[in-house]
Amino acid sequence: MKKVAIIMGSDSDLPKVKPALDKLRKFEVPFEVHVYSAHRTPVEAHEFSSKAKENGFGVIIAAAGKAAHLAGVMAANTTLPVIGIPIKASALEGIDALLSTVQMPAGIPVATVAIDGAENAAILAMQMLALSDEELSQKLKAMRDEMTEQVLKKDKELTY
Amino acid sequence: MKKVAIIMGSDSDLPKVKPALDKLRKFEVPFEVHVYSAHRTPVEAHEFSSKAKENGFGVIIAAAGKAAHLAGVMAANTTLPVIGIPIKASALEGIDALLSTVQMPAGIPVATVAIDGAENAAILAMQMLALSDEELSQKLKAMRDEMTEQVLKKDKELTY
Amino acid sequence: MKKVAIIMGSDSDLPKVKPALDKLRKFEVPFEVHVYSAHRTPVEAHEFSSKAKENGFGVIIAAAGKAAHLAGVMAANTTLPVIGIPIKASALEGIDALLSTVQMPAGIPVATVAIDGAENAAILAMQMLALSDEELSQKLKAMRDEMTEQVLKKDKELTY
Amino acid sequence: MKKVAIIMGSDSDLPKVKPALDKLRKFEVPFEVHVYSAHRTPVEAHEFSSKAKENGFGVIIAAAGKAAHLAGVMAANTTLPVIGIPIKASALEGIDALLSTVQMPAGIPVATVAIDGAENAAILAMQMLALSDEELSQKLKAMRDEMTEQVLKKDKELTY
Amino acid sequence: MKKVAIIMGSDSDLPKVKPALDKLRKFEVPFEVHVYSAHRTPVEAHEFSSKAKENGFGVIIAAAGKAAHLAGVMAANTTLPVIGIPIKASALEGIDALLSTVQMPAGIPVATVAIDGAENAAILAMQMLALSDEELSQKLKAMRDEMTEQVLKKDKELTY
Amino acid sequence: MKKVAIIMGSDSDLPKVKPALDKLRKFEVPFEVHVYSAHRTPVEAHEFSSKAKENGFGVIIAAAGKAAHLAGVMAANTTLPVIGIPIKASALEGIDALLSTVQMPAGIPVATVAIDGAENAAILAMQMLALSDEELSQKLKAMRDEMTEQVLKKDKELTY
Amino acid sequence: MKKVAIIMGSDSDLPKVKPALDKLRKFEVPFEVHVYSAHRTPVEAHEFSSKAKENGFGVIIAAAGKAAHLAGVMAANTTLPVIGIPIKASALEGIDALLSTVQMPAGIPVATVAIDGAENAAILAMQMLALSDEELSQKLKAMRDEMTEQVLKKDKELTY
Amino acid sequence: MKKVAIIMGSDSDLPKVKPALDKLRKFEVPFEVHVYSAHRTPVEAHEFSSKAKENGFGVIIAAAGKAAHLAGVMAANTTLPVIGIPIKASALEGIDALLSTVQMPAGIPVATVAIDGAENAAILAMQMLALSDEELSQKLKAMRDEMTEQVLKKDKELTY
Repeated sequence: MKKVAIIMGSDSDLPKVKPALDKLRKFEVPFEVHVYSAHRTPVEAHEFSSKAKENGFGVIIAAAGKAAHLAGVMAANTTLPVIGIPIKASALEGIDALLSTVQMPAGIPVATVAIDGAENAAILAMQMLALSDEELSQKLKAMRDEMTEQVLKKDKELTY
Repeated sequence: MKKVAIIMGSDSDLPKVKPALDKLRKFEVPFEVHVYSAHRTPVEAHEFSSKAKENGFGVIIAAAGKAAHLAGVMAANTTLPVIGIPIKASALEGIDALLSTVQMPAGIPVATVAIDGAENAAILAMQMLALSDEELSQKLKAMRDEMTEQVLKKDKELTY
Repeated sequence: MKKVAIIMGSDSDLPKVKPALDKLRKFEVPFEVHVYSAHRTPVEAHEFSSKAKENGFGVIIAAAGKAAHLAGVMAANTTLPVIGIPIKASALEGIDALLSTVQMPAGIPVATVAIDGAENAAILAMQMLALSDEELSQKLKAMRDEMTEQVLKKDKELTY
Repeated sequence: MKKVAIIMGSDSDLPKVKPALDKLRKFEVPFEVHVYSAHRTPVEAHEFSSKAKENGFGVIIAAAGKAAHLAGVMAANTTLPVIGIPIKASALEGIDALLSTVQMPAGIPVATVAIDGAENAAILAMQMLALSDEELSQKLKAMRDEMTEQVLKKDKELTY
Repeated sequence: MKKVAIIMGSDSDLPKVKPALDKLRKFEVPFEVHVYSAHRTPVEAHEFSSKAKENGFGVIIAAAGKAAHLAGVMAANTTLPVIGIPIKASALEGIDALLSTVQMPAGIPVATVAIDGAENAAILAMQMLALSDEELSQKLKAMRDEMTEQVLKKDKELTY
Repeated sequence: MKKVAIIMGSDSDLPKVKPALDKLRKFEVPFEVHVYSAHRTPVEAHEFSSKAKENGFGVIIAAAGKAAHLAGVMAANTTLPVIGIPIKASALEGIDALLSTVQMPAGIPVATVAIDGAENAAILAMQMLALSDEELSQKLKAMRDEMTEQVLKKDKELTY
Repeated sequence: MKKVAIIMGSDSDLPKVKPALDKLRKFEVPFEVHVYSAHRTPVEAHEFSSKAKENGFGVIIAAAGKAAHLAGVMAANTTLPVIGIPIKASALEGIDALLSTVQMPAGIPVATVAIDGAENAAILAMQMLALSDEELSQKLKAMRDEMTEQVLKKDKELTY
Repeated sequence: MKKVAIIMGSDSDLPKVKPALDKLRKFEVPFEVHVYSAHRTPVEAHEFSSKAKENGFGVIIAAAGKAAHLAGVMAANTTLPVIGIPIKASALEGIDALLSTVQMPAGIPVATVAIDGAENAAILAMQMLALSDEELSQKLKAMRDEMTEQVLKKDKELTY
């Protein structure tokens, strides 16, 4: 199976990215996590994304805050789908990261999820991989059914 | 090859969605276009997305403005990847559609592209399909190379 | 008397919704509370709203955060008035939920109250029911008079 | 049948309010239109809303732009449901009017619709009146069904 | 000397308004503080502002949060200058109160100060009164000189 | 009578400032108009405001767009009340000018009116001057009454 | 003298960038203009900025709209000062480009000017170069004096 | 070597400005820190910036919150490059300071860094000075290399 790459702009983002790792692990999807900054390690960021496909990756997830260029820089060097997670940093409630991630120019898309939406980034990556992996697709369906059941269980048990 | 579904909330969105159709046609990726509204045709929207996978679709693109629920409603009924295009309508410059599309709750991702970013939605859809279609992958790479060349050509010919 | 339905996207919203329950209880207006998510339980959300009228409901109140589609999804399946409470979640101060709730397309209104405005949602629901219930109308008038008196009492007792 | 009152802060808002009048006329719901400003005619605005119930009104719709206080001022003097239409004026894309209308304090709700959402204001008013008027309720249901059919017709006839 | 009126929408705003009271006290400018709500006590708010001039007031300061209509409602009933203090409440960082206060329609100005800017509201009120009170004018000049000296003192003593 | 000073950051702002001049002329309040920029003519801006009081001015109105520092710079050099008009320039809908004008630090207030609110700036200036000029106060009251009558006339003549 | 590099993300930005070229020409500061996109020509953008210093450049100006990563990408590969011009594109009034340009992480600054502020970008670049070029410094001072005179001339000639 | 001036609007900003002092100290770049307010000490602010060049300064860094006029006022009186640090104060998340700092009119640029971006302000100042100081330039390059190494080290040591 193709691997998922999860790239953070800073290792301080790890707690916000962790829900993605948990999800991938639970689904037994292989992944690698790296700390590469679009601005502090431009060469390595460039190189990683340029070679991601040949290195066996299928999807790249990039998480960054503020002027979040990481997902865009990744996307510029690969035709693999790139998922961007805007991280809420100390100011502006994450709207800066969201706009920096989502408002990409024509030609180079970034599949953007919600601010701090690491779990959904992982699910989205698996939905992409599941296009050619019926087993993974079934697992995703099962997770969805379980979510539905949990909500309905909470509905039934609600006391007010 | 799996088909791409392009759903608009209103047929008046067609001009904004057209760049996606053009791109898919150029790459000879099969697609269908539908007008389904999350609010005016909830039953059909529900049904379409519920059966999209078994009907041969691989990716769903949903375009809507204002309180843009369409992509989310699609995503709620399928485990196929859903791409959301926030459409800029008469007020608020499209920020309403962007937030309504991207800020999805955990469990149900929508891969959001830029406001009015139909072309990128199509490219992103093809990047997903290309995960298991090397020919399409090569075409995407060629398009990227062509884009690079065009920019470099413009750079060389620039008079100022 | 017709019942009020209060639907939350997640049971974690209960503390924010509670002021609505308190108000309805105090006014002895019958109500039901449910946890249905537009995205995690689309079938049940659809079904509940489709049958709300025949099941004796008069008004539906829907509370949700982030890309708050719940009120819109409810409104899409009923002609009962639907009141939306945008919930302030972890980022963006609730502006995402507000725009996702209020910016509905022509044809399907959602009566939106303030961010985290559960108490007003309940009062608004009762104002609607009071259109054909003079006793309830009198109670609402009495509450208003009491509010006025409380403010004037505070004005008189103010020490500064 | 109870009448709907439609109040504008300025007669220049009439073109934006007109879709509401058209809708009410089509449904044969009696209505009155007035120009009262929260700031230029505070006495009359106060008086109108204070007496609206005894004068046979069931719902008040108030449309205003910028620091849109009109709906709030109406709501302060009546327990009838008040619907606010934020009008997009020359600057700020209507976000000022939206926030001024929707962010009401606890105790005095305003049922806010989308920026320039006059048509939905009328529909919402009728949904309220229909709580005790099954004939009107049926008409609303028929309109909804017609909307659905129109979308499906457009879907079928779509050429792309 | 004409009095300054300070009106709060809720007695819970007192801590935020207190810097204004302190300033006026220090300058020995007579003032009164009241709790009147534009929405909960519309009659009293209307009456207070209508009679403010004949009751010896020169300036009205109104402090309110969220859909802050209080200053506008005061201004609608008097030709005295009205100063608005937008209060930052639980959501939206006070931008709702700012826009609701400052974006007044032509004809009825509100002199708006910064979010939570009670101290400046008091100074502004005194600047207005000082137009015909040279002694107060001198006091304001002295305060300004003192402020300047304090900053320069801090500059000199700065250790870094 | 004390004069009103109207300062623009650029002569291109004259059309937006003109409603203020018209209003002052109509009320026969003496005024002067100047083009001084906080950034291009800091010396003159400083000097004008420093001497405004001794030169017979009672109120300063300052109009500027973008990073609108003009009103603040004026206010820094005088204890006269300073009114700020945020001008909507080519981008950001005037929110930059509004925040730059209104968010003044403690000690130096600027009485801010709406974006492009020149007419209200003039009225506010006259309200301040009228504190010691009963004739002007009566004129303002008469204008207000006339405004009320005009709205009521429009209400009566409304055809819909 | 060191050259100024002006990089645009797209040749369609040329009209917005032109005021910078005009200014540099007028001051006889040598410059080069290029079209390099952070996303479409990442290799060339990387290479240009990496070698800018050794190729005789002193300052890099980068202009881009939407998710404006260009200035950040330039800054990542050089220690030369990089000036960013956020370009207002079709949606969001340029706030996306502003935040994407200015909110850079610690370690990699971008000197950001106003939205569409090309003229100021050129002036800022020259101010930097003038730190070691007294002649250029004098020219900048002369321009400033001329600006001041022009404003004062307009002030004197103002008719109103 | 030319000195860097760091000006704060208030001594309470010192903790936010400290990262700039630390950086300059580490690089042995001479600097002075002052507390001058655009509004409370306009004369001194004016004087300092007017004489900054002749007093041996090369770059001015100005930090201020809310309606942050300080950088603009500095820039108005000098042709030295002025760097603005928008400070996040109690409300609005710093967007007010950012817009007040960056949206400067044509002719008077302020090189704006991120909200609370003091460290980058110092680096940017040194990048400017390094244009004529190869030793400083080498130090900046070394710092950048060290940053890169740190990120790569963190990447290697990452456990997840």
